[in-house]
Amino acid sequence: MKNAAASTSIVLRLEIDKEQTSFGQIATAIGDAGGDIIAVDVTRAGKTSTTRDITVQLTDASLSQDLVRSVAQLPGVQVINVSDSTFLLHLGGKIEVTPKMPIKNRDDLSRVYTPGVARVSMAIHEKPSRAHTLTIKRNTVAVVSDGTAVLGLGDIGPLGAMPVMEGKAMLFKQLAGVDAFPICLDTRDTEEIIRTVKAIAPAFGGINLEDISSPRCFEIERRLSEELDIPVFHDDQHGTAVVLLAGLLNAVKLVGKRLADCKIVLCGLGAAGIACTKILLAAGAQNIIGVDRCGALVAGKTYAHEAWNWYAAHTNPHREQGALSDVIAGADIFVGVSAPGVLRVDDVKKMAPDAIVFAMANPTPEIAPEEAEGYVRVMATGRSDYPNQINNVLCFPGLFRGVLDCRASRITEGMKLAAAKAIASVVGEDELNELYIIPSVFNQSVAEKVREAVIDAAYAEGVARRRDFRENK
Amino acid sequence: MKNAAASTSIVLRLEIDKEQTSFGQIATAIGDAGGDIIAVDVTRAGKTSTTRDITVQLTDASLSQDLVRSVAQLPGVQVINVSDSTFLLHLGGKIEVTPKMPIKNRDDLSRVYTPGVARVSMAIHEKPSRAHTLTIKRNTVAVVSDGTAVLGLGDIGPLGAMPVMEGKAMLFKQLAGVDAFPICLDTRDTEEIIRTVKAIAPAFGGINLEDISSPRCFEIERRLSEELDIPVFHDDQHGTAVVLLAGLLNAVKLVGKRLADCKIVLCGLGAAGIACTKILLAAGAQNIIGVDRCGALVAGKTYAHEAWNWYAAHTNPHREQGALSDVIAGADIFVGVSAPGVLRVDDVKKMAPDAIVFAMANPTPEIAPEEAEGYVRVMATGRSDYPNQINNVLCFPGLFRGVLDCRASRITEGMKLAAAKAIASVVGEDELNELYIIPSVFNQSVAEKVREAVIDAAYAEGVARRRDFRENK
Repeated sequence: MKNAAASTSIVLRLEIDKEQTSFGQIATAIGDAGGDIIAVDVTRAGKTSTTRDITVQLTDASLSQDLVRSVAQLPGVQVINVSDSTFLLHLGGKIEVTPKMPIKNRDDLSRVYTPGVARVSMAIHEKPSRAHTLTIKRNTVAVVSDGTAVLGLGDIGPLGAMPVMEGKAMLFKQLAGVDAFPICLDTRDTEEIIRTVKAIAPAFGGINLEDISSPRCFEIERRLSEELDIPVFHDDQHGTAVVLLAGLLNAVKLVGKRLADCKIVLCGLGAAGIACTKILLAAGAQNIIGVDRCGALVAGKTYAHEAWNWYAAHTNPHREQGALSDVIAGADIFVGVSAPGVLRVDDVKKMAPDAIVFAMANPTPEIAPEEAEGYVRVMATGRSDYPNQINNVLCFPGLFRGVLDCRASRITEGMKLAAAKAIASVVGEDELNELYIIPSVFNQSVAEKVREAVIDAAYAEGVARRRDFRENK
Repeated sequence: MKNAAASTSIVLRLEIDKEQTSFGQIATAIGDAGGDIIAVDVTRAGKTSTTRDITVQLTDASLSQDLVRSVAQLPGVQVINVSDSTFLLHLGGKIEVTPKMPIKNRDDLSRVYTPGVARVSMAIHEKPSRAHTLTIKRNTVAVVSDGTAVLGLGDIGPLGAMPVMEGKAMLFKQLAGVDAFPICLDTRDTEEIIRTVKAIAPAFGGINLEDISSPRCFEIERRLSEELDIPVFHDDQHGTAVVLLAGLLNAVKLVGKRLADCKIVLCGLGAAGIACTKILLAAGAQNIIGVDRCGALVAGKTYAHEAWNWYAAHTNPHREQGALSDVIAGADIFVGVSAPGVLRVDDVKKMAPDAIVFAMANPTPEIAPEEAEGYVRVMATGRSDYPNQINNVLCFPGLFRGVLDCRASRITEGMKLAAAKAIASVVGEDELNELYIIPSVFNQSVAEKVREAVIDAAYAEGVARRRDFRENK
């Protein structure tokens, strides 16, 4: 990352009045400011002015501002746009829709389009489940967002969400061969979102909900799961939960504890925190204490959120009270899906021996690994620049690959647990150590392992609708 | 076409009880029935039964039924499925969503996804029009259908419509590099369709409405055009109209008449017929007589459809009355968007010298070219197996390529006229003859010519929102 930031290239789009400034003067100004011109394209040539895209290599990205300023000061030069390499990658979008085969002649055309296509359309009309075989529904997932909770950026709207959803579609295809298409919704009304997703569902074999703010995300996911016959998965909740569990399974194995015996303090009771708690309970955890700004949730109290009342009733069996710094005492595991810096070194010192800390706030964790070092045995974050990155990319491609392949009608708790165990299993017994409890996002075998585990679980739970195609099953 | 139909290959998926029938017995039965086995794949191997896909070449497609019957009669053999080459092309769908560049390492990942993507998302949030540059909106069209009027098949529902919309997406990409994605709607409620398309619009730079039945298609197109800031185009109406006009412009040129002087009888006053009439009026036609089952529409009468009252008021200046066989007398041009066989040889005989007949009912025209031969000078149909095919494929790829490239906010009458003239211009003066008035759908230069003409018209009419990028303009 640091190297990439240090040296960079930018593209200046300049409109140049030829009578006032020569290209030589511009090139000199760029050179004087520390830039090296590596390409020039004319994008528009008028009678008096020319528009040029000038690609400039900079040894240091910090030179960029001064360079642009000195070019802009030249007479007759107007800076239309400045793009760096990240922006250049985004020009025109990051995904495309391509035919699987070329239409070479009339015979091809008559098969993939009229008149031949009519027979395929009628076959589906007669038996709608054939759409799972004869259309893109076989392999296609909608990545649906309303742009209300995009990354750590908050409510930036559906257009702002597009680059994230496109990036997600790239990962779906590259890692698991799943075709994913971004559906960014120009509405934030719960009922309208539900109606819209149901209306466009025919083309899709699954729905990945993404970056929809709480509490609407609960209702939207629940209703869509009930009312559609294809799987619906809110990745911010369940993807995070699956990968957290994968990491924790390996972490407790490494330190020689059982999840059921661990005291787990989970900080941040939003959508992701509640989903993490549910999967931990499903995996056998007995003693989870949920903490938010108001302190630990305790049964018997009444909370404003319905979800918190459920939470208090199903966790914290010893009814521990107080702030994070109180209940953290003696904890084996800390799970953070909250905010930067909420876990202090003094808190970590109070934890049980062989403490496990998953500080997953993004981009700044609940405690910096450097601070925690020496007081924790296993540390994980959401970041790529530290060991043990808890990244949803480990889950969603293989999970959807599996549900599409067995034509699952929904995603059960058992399938999520199976996905978590599959991710954990990629790290071999002999490889497992404090700095390697979870595979890399580029590990090629993760998606296939997740796929297989999800398919087996789907058949076991009776939600797979495709005739069992597994060998010897 | 005949050759393709004569020899074909099919794939039989058989579940075979190994104890009752050997593969050799099956192979013998297939051979006896005239089939040649060219591939065998095991798709599932159980303890007692095996599922095999057997690809069989047939010298004559008509042998297929008997072959399947004789295989099905073997003991312990169950025919799960029979696919021919058209169905095989459709397996898993015909389009895919692919990344434009691979994500090779963490540095790539940090640019196309988190954390780098956040800067791009924020740039769009700050200035939403940047989505036209930095996302797939730049190049992507939604192909929207509710499946109520698919080809000649009628109301077969959104799943049945999918293969047609996927085929259309293939043509968009192959002919004009436009990314198109099928949105097949599980609703036929006008307001719900309008709401849904508006809600999903952020990802798209244009909306192609397709195979939506009349009269809902009028309201849906009108409202979406008014309420969205991207172009909305109902291809069944306007695509047909544009290509019809392209053909007619060349036909009248060939016979040495002026469109303004021609008596035009247009039969079939549904959505396409009305759109054809409007573009002919815009192109200068003065004497159009619209005919439907009730006969010629005449000003002064009151009709059930609002559109027909408009029609009667704006056409038929000489108030000709009667059935098609009455008003056809002396007509220079017949345009049919109605039903098979409605135009009889006796009708054609009554037409003016150098009669022009566009019989576009699909798949069976208003009159067969063989019947009309000798009585008409120029004949066009919607079919690929006769000369002069009036096919929407000549219009929509280049039209949307143009509107995306200049970021048009809508598609004006002027842009449609320009598209028609561009299509017509592809047939050179020296090439023009009775059997070649309209270019082939595989003519590579059509889309580019349409694109250029549409862009020029969009700038001329003030609907292009991109800064003018044309050279020397």
